[in-house]
Amino acid sequence: MTPEEFRAAAHELVDWIADFRLRVPDLPVRSEAEPGEVRTALAGPPPERPEPFAALMDDLDRVVVPGITQIQSPGYFAWFPSNAALASVLGDMASSGLGALGITWQSAPALTELEEVVTEWLRELCGLAPEWRGAIHDTASTACLVAMLAARERATGLGETRGGLQAEPAPLVVYATAQAHSSVPKAVLLAGFGRENLRLVDVDPVTYAMDPGSLRAAMAADVAAGRRPAAVVASIGTTGTTAVDPVAEIVTVAAEHGAWVHVDAAMAGSAMLLPECRHLFAGVDGADSLSWNPHKWLGTVLDTSLLYVRDVAHLTAVMSTNPSYLRSAVDGEVTQYKDWGIPLGRRFRALKLWFHLRLDGAEAIRARLRRDLDNARWLAGEVEAEPGWELLAPVTLQTVCLRHVPAELVGTDGSVTDLDALDAHTLGWVERVNASGRAFLTAALLEGRWMARVSIGAEPTERGDVEALWTLAREAVAPHR
Amino acid sequence: MTPEEFRAAAHELVDWIADFRLRVPDLPVRSEAEPGEVRTALAGPPPERPEPFAALMDDLDRVVVPGITQIQSPGYFAWFPSNAALASVLGDMASSGLGALGITWQSAPALTELEEVVTEWLRELCGLAPEWRGAIHDTASTACLVAMLAARERATGLGETRGGLQAEPAPLVVYATAQAHSSVPKAVLLAGFGRENLRLVDVDPVTYAMDPGSLRAAMAADVAAGRRPAAVVASIGTTGTTAVDPVAEIVTVAAEHGAWVHVDAAMAGSAMLLPECRHLFAGVDGADSLSWNPHKWLGTVLDTSLLYVRDVAHLTAVMSTNPSYLRSAVDGEVTQYKDWGIPLGRRFRALKLWFHLRLDGAEAIRARLRRDLDNARWLAGEVEAEPGWELLAPVTLQTVCLRHVPAELVGTDGSVTDLDALDAHTLGWVERVNASGRAFLTAALLEGRWMARVSIGAEPTERGDVEALWTLAREAVAPHR
Repeated sequence: MTPEEFRAAAHELVDWIADFRLRVPDLPVRSEAEPGEVRTALAGPPPERPEPFAALMDDLDRVVVPGITQIQSPGYFAWFPSNAALASVLGDMASSGLGALGITWQSAPALTELEEVVTEWLRELCGLAPEWRGAIHDTASTACLVAMLAARERATGLGETRGGLQAEPAPLVVYATAQAHSSVPKAVLLAGFGRENLRLVDVDPVTYAMDPGSLRAAMAADVAAGRRPAAVVASIGTTGTTAVDPVAEIVTVAAEHGAWVHVDAAMAGSAMLLPECRHLFAGVDGADSLSWNPHKWLGTVLDTSLLYVRDVAHLTAVMSTNPSYLRSAVDGEVTQYKDWGIPLGRRFRALKLWFHLRLDGAEAIRARLRRDLDNARWLAGEVEAEPGWELLAPVTLQTVCLRHVPAELVGTDGSVTDLDALDAHTLGWVERVNASGRAFLTAALLEGRWMARVSIGAEPTERGDVEALWTLAREAVAPHR
Repeated sequence: MTPEEFRAAAHELVDWIADFRLRVPDLPVRSEAEPGEVRTALAGPPPERPEPFAALMDDLDRVVVPGITQIQSPGYFAWFPSNAALASVLGDMASSGLGALGITWQSAPALTELEEVVTEWLRELCGLAPEWRGAIHDTASTACLVAMLAARERATGLGETRGGLQAEPAPLVVYATAQAHSSVPKAVLLAGFGRENLRLVDVDPVTYAMDPGSLRAAMAADVAAGRRPAAVVASIGTTGTTAVDPVAEIVTVAAEHGAWVHVDAAMAGSAMLLPECRHLFAGVDGADSLSWNPHKWLGTVLDTSLLYVRDVAHLTAVMSTNPSYLRSAVDGEVTQYKDWGIPLGRRFRALKLWFHLRLDGAEAIRARLRRDLDNARWLAGEVEAEPGWELLAPVTLQTVCLRHVPAELVGTDGSVTDLDALDAHTLGWVERVNASGRAFLTAALLEGRWMARVSIGAEPTERGDVEALWTLAREAVAPHR
């Protein structure tokens, strides 16, 4: 495709994208595609000859758009906010158009140095201490794995350069809670620690936050049994209930054993932009690594996950590669992001953040985050005031965990008479909301029982949309349904 | 940013990208930015207020474009081809514009099923057996790590679910050659095997391909010493010289020990589209995993790395996560790519491949690959015919490894009298070529001595551009320089 052919097609595509974004609010939020439906519509022999651009645009309209759940809809309350702000989309377009290759500094100095600029901007905006240095990864899952590898290699004194984890005399142990995101046990397992060496520390029964006393006791028990504490993963804003582990106390306990502290703030990290939320992050400057995803609540288009570390020299010792064909005269003077993570090659992802922050400005982003916090508090108030409904966890951020308990399931002593029936009721009304096409939220297990999670924070979601969801939810639990 | 503001800015950006691509041939190939230059130009306090789009476009022109090495230039012969075909850029624009979130099938059925369609198309185009199933990762480094984790967990019988690698009684060993890409030892180390358990198997002194006899002997020695062969990484098209390890024989040897065979064909995988090159891949259908990067020679914009496996059930057992908030009614019927690799969330990367293949067509892509092979053979012929120049490795694909030996460094018996002086000469003339701004190639070590690598395959590189490089190289070694 020549640049002139691209120009013609890309102008069409830009109009298509703008028009698509305008009609997102009118689309069903949850895709109603059946398993295999998209594949059947689009499969066939691989294309030998060029097809007209119009054929692809038709397929986008006909198959792809109905085949995606509309994360950018004002009625999207599922999983977590996963915004794709159009300012950041422009930056991503520039990245693809430039076609730069980030392997070494030399391959694209601007790619490296702009990543330094934007990660430094976000450090400042988050009020983090100056010693943190950041890099962009694809997701917090990868960032967590990198942190676990760094932790493993600190505990073993760079054992990877010798016999690896296989040669460690004493088992290394990692600590988290059952509320941690699924990527945390996954990272622990992939790093080779083994599930038996992952301790799920007790949480506070009301806040679901890690109990530092239990952490201390667990570490002591492991040490007594000949094992070594290697890392703690503290969550700030768990996926289930946005629980906040007490990082300051965890850092203190971990320090007694030299254990690495990784803070997973994938969704909640955006709240660091708000000074009034910084108290949730108290102690974070004492941790060893911190990850959060601008591609969630902040709104930068996927994939933009930040991993900050304080000891860059250790990280690059763990991750370094230095083959001859990647060496250059300036190696000592520049940042080589290839040595900060798993992949060698990187896209020019910094452009997404650069465009997003410069075109929207931090002030407007903060105002949007505050709007979402306010909407969550409003909904929490409504739920608390409504008979038959209950809030299941403190509303610390923008997620509201709730349940409706039908009167017929309440016994004379006020307790629920049939928990399985309650689960079925919860799954039923959540499904009715989702099937309406007007809103989409997630059911999740909390302490073994289903709840509804309303995660507020899609870019276009205003108070009216939250009110509409609340109406929809109350209709969905009505007995005549 | 509203859709209408996006529309206006994006139309400008599209023209900018098209104009940029038109002027790439006139830009210096290697960025001449000094360390810190871009950072200094773009640093400052984080932006509080929105800036005008024009300010960003000015910075793109003024700082970013001179700050990237022009991988898309006809004079680009460094590292490996890293094309960003404009048809695939359109697909990437569509991906960012849609703002879909790939976490589970439900979050974007089309994202999952289109990934199945395009990975199946490429399987067919590559002539791979039907049992291979593919997924898109960011880079081959990540794909190789995933393969090493799968290998580790096969050797341990899913030891991650118990004590992990720490609990294995006998050390597990991985085999590759010193010619393997730097991401191979990195993956072995990150997977926890340890450098002492990575065997660098001897290579053929002429072809630099792994010697299967040496592999067999190394495995036997390890078994005799109480260690267990866990995996072999075979390279098809090494980075240095595009050496081709004999996969069929390696598969046979590995099978004797139940070791996993991962085939790294990151750059060369594109050659599978050419039936006349398939002989290089003989035996690949007996391997366990195979990775190659459409974002290299094939031309799909970064990041598009394919990892094919034959035993999907094992891979997903290693990588699986299944928290309540990600469950849905269709789980058993659909592909959950979250369980095929490290990240949970994925971009709609399949669109890049889908647009690329449909808009350009396989026929045109094959013609381009054949053009590059032909250009490499032409250059190899010129080098062989020119006094003072030598070819250092068989030209199997599109990479030509060469050296110029000045007459004053040749002794009476025909051998080189001063190898350090030869190294200095090689680095000197390569730097003169690169400093010209008209071409860019890589010096690399081969058996401890520097050579020049001419990696042909940028999308716009025609015979005339290779001729110009060859003229430039001969001028650069002239004694008056």
